Amino acid sequence: MPQATNARHPPELQVSEWINTSETPSLAALRGQVVVVHAFQMLCPGCVAHGLPQAKRLTQVFAGRDLVVIGLHTVFEHHAVMTPAALRVFLHEYRIGFPVGIDMAGDPGPLPLTMQAYRMEGTPTLLVFDRQGQLQLNQLGQVDDMALGAMIGELLAQAA
Amino acid sequence: MPQATNARHPPELQVSEWINTSETPSLAALRGQVVVVHAFQMLCPGCVAHGLPQAKRLTQVFAGRDLVVIGLHTVFEHHAVMTPAALRVFLHEYRIGFPVGIDMAGDPGPLPLTMQAYRMEGTPTLLVFDRQGQLQLNQLGQVDDMALGAMIGELLAQAA
Amino acid sequence: MPQATNARHPPELQVSEWINTSETPSLAALRGQVVVVHAFQMLCPGCVAHGLPQAKRLTQVFAGRDLVVIGLHTVFEHHAVMTPAALRVFLHEYRIGFPVGIDMAGDPGPLPLTMQAYRMEGTPTLLVFDRQGQLQLNQLGQVDDMALGAMIGELLAQAA
Amino acid sequence: MPQATNARHPPELQVSEWINTSETPSLAALRGQVVVVHAFQMLCPGCVAHGLPQAKRLTQVFAGRDLVVIGLHTVFEHHAVMTPAALRVFLHEYRIGFPVGIDMAGDPGPLPLTMQAYRMEGTPTLLVFDRQGQLQLNQLGQVDDMALGAMIGELLAQAA
Repeated sequence: MPQATNARHPPELQVSEWINTSETPSLAALRGQVVVVHAFQMLCPGCVAHGLPQAKRLTQVFAGRDLVVIGLHTVFEHHAVMTPAALRVFLHEYRIGFPVGIDMAGDPGPLPLTMQAYRMEGTPTLLVFDRQGQLQLNQLGQVDDMALGAMIGELLAQAA
Repeated sequence: MPQATNARHPPELQVSEWINTSETPSLAALRGQVVVVHAFQMLCPGCVAHGLPQAKRLTQVFAGRDLVVIGLHTVFEHHAVMTPAALRVFLHEYRIGFPVGIDMAGDPGPLPLTMQAYRMEGTPTLLVFDRQGQLQLNQLGQVDDMALGAMIGELLAQAA
Repeated sequence: MPQATNARHPPELQVSEWINTSETPSLAALRGQVVVVHAFQMLCPGCVAHGLPQAKRLTQVFAGRDLVVIGLHTVFEHHAVMTPAALRVFLHEYRIGFPVGIDMAGDPGPLPLTMQAYRMEGTPTLLVFDRQGQLQLNQLGQVDDMALGAMIGELLAQAA
Repeated sequence: MPQATNARHPPELQVSEWINTSETPSLAALRGQVVVVHAFQMLCPGCVAHGLPQAKRLTQVFAGRDLVVIGLHTVFEHHAVMTPAALRVFLHEYRIGFPVGIDMAGDPGPLPLTMQAYRMEGTPTLLVFDRQGQLQLNQLGQVDDMALGAMIGELLAQAA
């Protein structure tokens, strides 16, 4: 179920490091496009089996369209082993080429800052933003391909 | 690949008998809604494994929306055993509840009339019509769930 | 669960017609080999999705070994449309090349004779006979590939 | 293809640390049982998607039988991130409960010692030993469930 804490003015991504891009993507800068943020942990089975392959399919099905797919590594457990170095190896081995941000570590708690700001309850979590930058989906768990495609298709059809 | 023989004024469905409905659906009467026609044969493995389950998913994912899903039994071979009576059993056993029309037999050739009119090259074939009744897709073979969802989402977002 | 009605002296197959073979296979004649009988109906979704593909895999995995795979068309409903002619088309379209027998029609009831003799409760049902011709499995429903492979592997290892 | 370097007297496992067991399993001590060693790396996609789930199915299908399933973490690349601590988290998250040994680091090369001794060419690799301790399979890549079940069934049927 959507956890639309503040859907009209959703908080900005807080990222300590970007992989697979030389830019520093932000929701503000991506305004005008539809944006999907796939929040995951590299050792989360549901993320590896379902979420990340789906994110990769999004980049293929919507190639050439106004859709931006971003990964967000929201480490909230086992921080000692899900390090940036480990994540780089993981992304390489799983052939994930879209930009991935590392969610900024929280202090003192285990939850990173973007995860906190969106009140995510675990991984995988999917965030979908429309062209106006408003949050349209904040969903924990597995999302159906056809339903997700439909949602994004409708959002793409809206004027910027 | 789309076989858009006459995409702006696509030919009407020619159906000898309807199953799962007491109405007689027509493209003309459905104008204003998005329409998906799944053309299949009951003994076509690709239809049974992929096409028909996908058509069923469409009815679930787009429940309550302006999408109409129609099956079309386009028998172009083995006419003696893919009869209306056999089709009724098949639809019952596979729990297919959406309307299914039997494509009108051609004479003298084996190809039924709607199949001919759309120059379908086999089964499964998917036809997608927009709200204006124009043909947007005429595709033989397996279609990706996410891509199909996206296409329908975009068509639903268009004004009638 | 096995319905081992008479596992030591299981009843002979009663078949009105054989397809995909010029012989008339019998359990008696196959003594010395391991025999798998896959009982199915051509319009049974579980048979089409799971049972028959598994039977086909058996012929591939155990090619060159003392395993005989036989299909048995046990029509117990919708007799009017699951005819021998329809079955032949079905087997052709699904590329099923192993011998298939048509279970002899019962009279007056709807259940065919081999189905009755083995007290099968539906389709798909899998019968497995060891080299001595004794019934080792009589199972309704989906069977796991690895477990079935293991069972047949053990039976093949036994002396004839 | 089997790489049976010395199938009759296969080299002993060389393990620096065991997880999920308080014992120190060895091929010598397991003589009399059938033994499957699944060699994997925790960040190898084929291991995660196919090999490890299959190893887990082996423990379920052959529960109560003379089959021992062992994982072997054969790290030959990215040593810095596929550490014992990371492996423990991985095994916990993926609910892998069978014993897993960490293949002893090679020096100076990147290949660990058991991997070298069996001339493994990558991961996943499956080793299968019969009751006499002889190597019956040394296979890189995905192995079919039914074929693997059959092989183990036959080996279990042999006298110790």
